[in-house]
Amino acid sequence: SAVEKKIRGPQIRNLLEAKDFILFDCDGVIWHGETAITGAAKVVSSLIRHGKNVVFVTNNCTRPRENYVHKFYRLGFTDVMLEQIFSSSYCSALYLRDVVKIRGQVFEADEPDATIYDCALAEDVKAVLVGHDDKLTFLKLAKASCYLRDPDCLFLATDNDPWHPLSGGRILPGSGSLTAALEVSSGRKATVIGKPSRFMFECISSQFSGVEPAQCLMIGDRLETDMLFGSNCGFDTMLTLTGVSQLEEAQEYRDSELAANHSLVPDYVVDSIADFLPAFEELDDEQSN
Amino acid sequence: SAVEKKIRGPQIRNLLEAKDFILFDCDGVIWHGETAITGAAKVVSSLIRHGKNVVFVTNNCTRPRENYVHKFYRLGFTDVMLEQIFSSSYCSALYLRDVVKIRGQVFEADEPDATIYDCALAEDVKAVLVGHDDKLTFLKLAKASCYLRDPDCLFLATDNDPWHPLSGGRILPGSGSLTAALEVSSGRKATVIGKPSRFMFECISSQFSGVEPAQCLMIGDRLETDMLFGSNCGFDTMLTLTGVSQLEEAQEYRDSELAANHSLVPDYVVDSIADFLPAFEELDDEQSN
Repeated sequence: SAVEKKIRGPQIRNLLEAKDFILFDCDGVIWHGETAITGAAKVVSSLIRHGKNVVFVTNNCTRPRENYVHKFYRLGFTDVMLEQIFSSSYCSALYLRDVVKIRGQVFEADEPDATIYDCALAEDVKAVLVGHDDKLTFLKLAKASCYLRDPDCLFLATDNDPWHPLSGGRILPGSGSLTAALEVSSGRKATVIGKPSRFMFECISSQFSGVEPAQCLMIGDRLETDMLFGSNCGFDTMLTLTGVSQLEEAQEYRDSELAANHSLVPDYVVDSIADFLPAFEELDDEQSN
Repeated sequence: SAVEKKIRGPQIRNLLEAKDFILFDCDGVIWHGETAITGAAKVVSSLIRHGKNVVFVTNNCTRPRENYVHKFYRLGFTDVMLEQIFSSSYCSALYLRDVVKIRGQVFEADEPDATIYDCALAEDVKAVLVGHDDKLTFLKLAKASCYLRDPDCLFLATDNDPWHPLSGGRILPGSGSLTAALEVSSGRKATVIGKPSRFMFECISSQFSGVEPAQCLMIGDRLETDMLFGSNCGFDTMLTLTGVSQLEEAQEYRDSELAANHSLVPDYVVDSIADFLPAFEELDDEQSN
């Protein structure tokens, strides 16, 4: 099984030759915070140079696409463009605009001393969208719970990531944590926009013509989001071990008696996407001969 | 079935005669906020006058037992004493002291401009206890998530109530909502102290000698906490329709194919505990004859 053995040089080369679209998660795959994974910038530019369509599919909803371009550039990825970046916040905006046709104001509660007993509640709220929010307060949670009592008010979440690793063993609660709180207090389930939902692939398909799932490879560090997203979309999937999920977890899912867990098992495993580099050297050697 | 037909005068009288311990939930049963349910004070004093042991078992964790005595008195319940009151916060304190033998400080984060990236984290935290917290912030959630990375740090919740109704159709997120957020961000499950956990009955048993489950009647307004608590403890259960749960929900649980749902079905249903009053009139008539 793929989860027994990491793939290496010639196999990676064959795999990359067979795929036209390479989809990367960012955190834990391309970078950790403000530090690029060693070799990642060279891998991305080599893929682009060899004519691959490279897109970045991230559940991180904290920055606009423009900021991603700047961050890529700052970390040495000089050929990444706006059109290649699909974040859960960008796709949430597409969902609101194109799928449910909601246009309007995004507003945020700002009543310092108000409580849920006496605060103002907006009229006719069409949607509650949960994302990462380090300004979360009890009042925000309570107001959102009130809005969701209206069955016509949509309940969306940018993503369901439970937590993110920080340096020093600290934990950053993810949107999935905040969504869980609101799901319990509202008695409703959120529609999730980000991975593992297929919707992000629909966003990519709508902007790149002729994307065939069989020609896509999804590369990520998290089994529950990246690998499941790939499975849900019909892609081949690759786990890179520079992030959250460990090989043992993939093996546990593989051995699970719950069939649904098998969708979380990657088709391929690498220690790091830097393992791609020898494949390009071979390809470049061939081309120069 | 009991869920088809509410019980009335003579049946209520027979039931009360057969039980020595009457356990009441408070919110939605005895009062709504600062308003007593009509007739409730007379019911409670009549039960006490007829020699019943009356205890109050509430998942509300926001006030100490003393405050409950004051509230009872303020709302016309003049014969309720401290020893009759079992709240989830009181029982959580008993759990920490007597079961897991933790003594120490309860502290709360108070660093106005800190973030989870740079805040101080306490050393050697032995337990995280989640309760209702209208001062919840993202930083508190994040700090608790960090503490729970230590497998020796206990994870407790006063209760799992999802939400509470407020006037005007508003919603107050319950401890269960905050616990869900922390369960997702920590990847752990909380040990719940309050109803439906049996632990609150253990607290009562330890303070009243000779409590037999067969002689107990649990009266509440919420199927998922009160009725399940009664079932878990081996009590007869009674749903009163002055609070959260509706008769139709009880019937849905009864008709459910999931056997576990049958534990949420009450043995008896009344519109209000004021329906007890005719039973006392009969008893009083008999005694005066």
